[in-house]
Amino acid sequence: MEVLKPGDIVLMVGADGRRRLITLQENQSYHTHRGTIPHSELIGKPPGRVVSTQLGYPYLVLEPGVADLIRNIKRITQIVYPKDAAYIVMRLNLSAGKRVLEAGTGSGGLTIALAKAVMPGGHVVSCEVRGDIHRLAARNLEKLGLLPYVTLFNRDLSEGCDVQYVDAVFLDMKEPWQHLDYVEEALRPGGFFGSLLPTTNQVSALLDGLSQHNFMDISVEELLLRPYKPVAERLRPTDRMIAHSGYLIFARRVETSDEARRWFSPIRRMHRDKYLGKGEGEEDA
Amino acid sequence: MEVLKPGDIVLMVGADGRRRLITLQENQSYHTHRGTIPHSELIGKPPGRVVSTQLGYPYLVLEPGVADLIRNIKRITQIVYPKDAAYIVMRLNLSAGKRVLEAGTGSGGLTIALAKAVMPGGHVVSCEVRGDIHRLAARNLEKLGLLPYVTLFNRDLSEGCDVQYVDAVFLDMKEPWQHLDYVEEALRPGGFFGSLLPTTNQVSALLDGLSQHNFMDISVEELLLRPYKPVAERLRPTDRMIAHSGYLIFARRVETSDEARRWFSPIRRMHRDKYLGKGEGEEDA
Amino acid sequence: MEVLKPGDIVLMVGADGRRRLITLQENQSYHTHRGTIPHSELIGKPPGRVVSTQLGYPYLVLEPGVADLIRNIKRITQIVYPKDAAYIVMRLNLSAGKRVLEAGTGSGGLTIALAKAVMPGGHVVSCEVRGDIHRLAARNLEKLGLLPYVTLFNRDLSEGCDVQYVDAVFLDMKEPWQHLDYVEEALRPGGFFGSLLPTTNQVSALLDGLSQHNFMDISVEELLLRPYKPVAERLRPTDRMIAHSGYLIFARRVETSDEARRWFSPIRRMHRDKYLGKGEGEEDA
Amino acid sequence: MEVLKPGDIVLMVGADGRRRLITLQENQSYHTHRGTIPHSELIGKPPGRVVSTQLGYPYLVLEPGVADLIRNIKRITQIVYPKDAAYIVMRLNLSAGKRVLEAGTGSGGLTIALAKAVMPGGHVVSCEVRGDIHRLAARNLEKLGLLPYVTLFNRDLSEGCDVQYVDAVFLDMKEPWQHLDYVEEALRPGGFFGSLLPTTNQVSALLDGLSQHNFMDISVEELLLRPYKPVAERLRPTDRMIAHSGYLIFARRVETSDEARRWFSPIRRMHRDKYLGKGEGEEDA
Repeated sequence: MEVLKPGDIVLMVGADGRRRLITLQENQSYHTHRGTIPHSELIGKPPGRVVSTQLGYPYLVLEPGVADLIRNIKRITQIVYPKDAAYIVMRLNLSAGKRVLEAGTGSGGLTIALAKAVMPGGHVVSCEVRGDIHRLAARNLEKLGLLPYVTLFNRDLSEGCDVQYVDAVFLDMKEPWQHLDYVEEALRPGGFFGSLLPTTNQVSALLDGLSQHNFMDISVEELLLRPYKPVAERLRPTDRMIAHSGYLIFARRVETSDEARRWFSPIRRMHRDKYLGKGEGEEDA
Repeated sequence: MEVLKPGDIVLMVGADGRRRLITLQENQSYHTHRGTIPHSELIGKPPGRVVSTQLGYPYLVLEPGVADLIRNIKRITQIVYPKDAAYIVMRLNLSAGKRVLEAGTGSGGLTIALAKAVMPGGHVVSCEVRGDIHRLAARNLEKLGLLPYVTLFNRDLSEGCDVQYVDAVFLDMKEPWQHLDYVEEALRPGGFFGSLLPTTNQVSALLDGLSQHNFMDISVEELLLRPYKPVAERLRPTDRMIAHSGYLIFARRVETSDEARRWFSPIRRMHRDKYLGKGEGEEDA
Repeated sequence: MEVLKPGDIVLMVGADGRRRLITLQENQSYHTHRGTIPHSELIGKPPGRVVSTQLGYPYLVLEPGVADLIRNIKRITQIVYPKDAAYIVMRLNLSAGKRVLEAGTGSGGLTIALAKAVMPGGHVVSCEVRGDIHRLAARNLEKLGLLPYVTLFNRDLSEGCDVQYVDAVFLDMKEPWQHLDYVEEALRPGGFFGSLLPTTNQVSALLDGLSQHNFMDISVEELLLRPYKPVAERLRPTDRMIAHSGYLIFARRVETSDEARRWFSPIRRMHRDKYLGKGEGEEDA
Repeated sequence: MEVLKPGDIVLMVGADGRRRLITLQENQSYHTHRGTIPHSELIGKPPGRVVSTQLGYPYLVLEPGVADLIRNIKRITQIVYPKDAAYIVMRLNLSAGKRVLEAGTGSGGLTIALAKAVMPGGHVVSCEVRGDIHRLAARNLEKLGLLPYVTLFNRDLSEGCDVQYVDAVFLDMKEPWQHLDYVEEALRPGGFFGSLLPTTNQVSALLDGLSQHNFMDISVEELLLRPYKPVAERLRPTDRMIAHSGYLIFARRVETSDEARRWFSPIRRMHRDKYLGKGEGEEDA
């Protein structure tokens, strides 16, 4: 059975719901408001246990999942939530061996998910224009041992990122539509494009940009995660939830033409649906 | 540049939104209501193109992503939607090399996502009690070349699946609470447990079961995917959406005790939150 | 006890969930796929009963509620759903005696809710530019005996509607921002303004317009109604739901100035929230 | 033009989003963190204006709408949110002249909406078992001048409320299923029943109870209100929202029989839908 060793990152969960990531080190202790737990009580033992402080308060010792890492790394930027990160990985069709370009890196939360998805054999290239954020992401990924699968650049995407024919590109930035010429070049034909944008105005601007470049099969989606109180005899949603993380835009890099785009235009399709008496927006099964 | 070859599975997207998976074969044609496209026009050329029928109707030729596979494979059971499949993969912390047990297999949609996540080096073991469904899943996975990463059993989970110390278990069945003794044994300490259930009554029953076994860090969540019409100048959600696929329950396999469970009981936490003047259900950041 | 009489509108609910409004008439029958029910079996008896066709199929006989009326009147326009109609009535602060201006009338669904809210003593004035729609609304309201509380004009709002100092105005039209000069005049100081718009682009245009007129306390909201299958032992949401009816915009008619608007600008508030370390968008309790 | 006078309740809205109800009195002032505004500056003038403190901070002076009253009255119980209150009023089919029974009263938020809907000519009878809550509700309704339309009892519903043949009953209590015998008696045939419950377990228990009494046309629904930041050039949902207020259950009081209930059973309908190849839960248009 696997046991914890110095350098391992462990998730400590308190009975009050508090979740903290700690890096195990000999001669260190985990300090809480309710007493301390020496790391030596964790090292050499398996995770998946309950350990108590000297004051008797129990803590759960867990190997963190990727969702825990994303939520609990140090960050100075808006997080890409696990629900979105998971869906982005699937919609970019990432699996072991794929090559993906990300910009901007931010604190590296999504980068963790991308790296875990393409390793081993695949690679993530990620650009971040702000130096302090770039350095934080580098530290976060190093701690998790993910740097072999990631190349981080401290530069603007427009300066180029030494990649071509990548399988997927994800843009998490204010004006992704400014970079579509570059993305069109960097992405292999048929490649997967994605972006996350907080406002509807940005979504409209990106849709506009995509319609003037070689992208098709465009979709705009939103994911809402609704948590419940996990109580068998009083099951109910929590009182509050995250109402908005961002709009997700996905598209495919396609050799196309103005004529083809007109054929596939969603407006054209809306008119056709109306003509056919179908509910607007009903999916063709 | 990569080109399509016989045996490749291709996604054909029509201007009417229809999406079909086809397997390329010499001397075959793709037949639509608007004319045909010989496979020979696709073979030997890259995907990511627009090709027209002899009647002039254009079709998009794409390499299918995992989400396309899940949605478009043959199936005789309720689908696990891509939004849920993606989140399940993340919450079970799957990445290359991990070993995961699934029951039941169903038509194999989630199995595809699990296999893509753990390959190469990892493995999926999946049980399905119904013979016809088991055989369909096997055919679906074979077509996609995923059988090297998956072992399918046509049996009930309670008969055992020749696994132990797996990293994760996912139960997609009517009464998962009947199988918790087995899951407790099959899952390594600290391992990741998940389940998808359509009704609130089942969620309550599973929460009850989990509270009597060695599971903690339990959560119940729901994911809602809201699609938009991707029209820059008339951006809006579609008229209708999937309102419910299922409740997602996640937990960790933990060596615990009745006392520890009492400490971490969500009811206890609800009372404490009230006492502390916190909104019930507010997350402790 | 009240009994049904000729001219009453009755809601017939079949065991298949079908809901139909019928107007009771002597010597008439309600024809269904599963047999007929003579109106004479309903007239002279109370509603709230189960009545069967000659073939033995039971139908529920109910007095329709306003939500039933809205959903089941004849219509040639997009419906304002009951969930939205109810909320609009509350946010326009309508109660007996209030005077409200609506444009356009559409098939009269919302007009029914407005009339029921302000009667007796109040009044609804409603404009509709299209003749066929105007006439349909008139027939719908006449059947329900609501014409004493409603004045319908077949004209564009810009031609004026002979009202001033109304308590509330609701605009359900494509370009409500074109009419804000008129609304500013028609609405009494402090009066309530509302609008329903399907696209985000329209919402932005209306917000722009409101910010250049005497409106404040502006809000944009959306209501989602999630129906459940009402089965005690298998409680769960339905598979599909209406994903979007429209964005609801509310504001108050206020004597204001450019300086006051700057003070109350939501952008200014977003900056202040950030400065104060509050989550953007968190409500000040 | 109408002007404000002593005794009027006014809503003061600050540039920081704070909303406070005040009752105008001669020789009083409204005190804020940013200075004071003497009531004398409001009395004798119309609402719908911007007024500044002596320090120059502007406040919006508004006549409160019902939604503002519900949100801002003094309360010691969980609020019924305006979105739910509005929908309840519509689904109970309340309009001027109707008679409605409510239990429990709580702080009186929903009672305000019910009273405003049935006045004049209608009446609300409301029971509350806890004395302190009953007294608070009485004070809240008195301040708003609504007591002529409301009779408040400080007793348990099971002790009876001196009503019969009311048009509608609404139960906002922990175990409404305990009171269905009484409701069945108090409600006129065809009358409207509603309840609000926070947990799924309670919903199941109430559905069970309703199925053993004379109720049909049962529905379970949930309303989600999603607020947006009202900024034209950066339109987006707020970061957080209320995720759950409660499940809404509605039904009609009907003379029925076990056989009729079987015909209309939702399970029977689910089977039939499956048989007919319809999506489970699809509405029969």
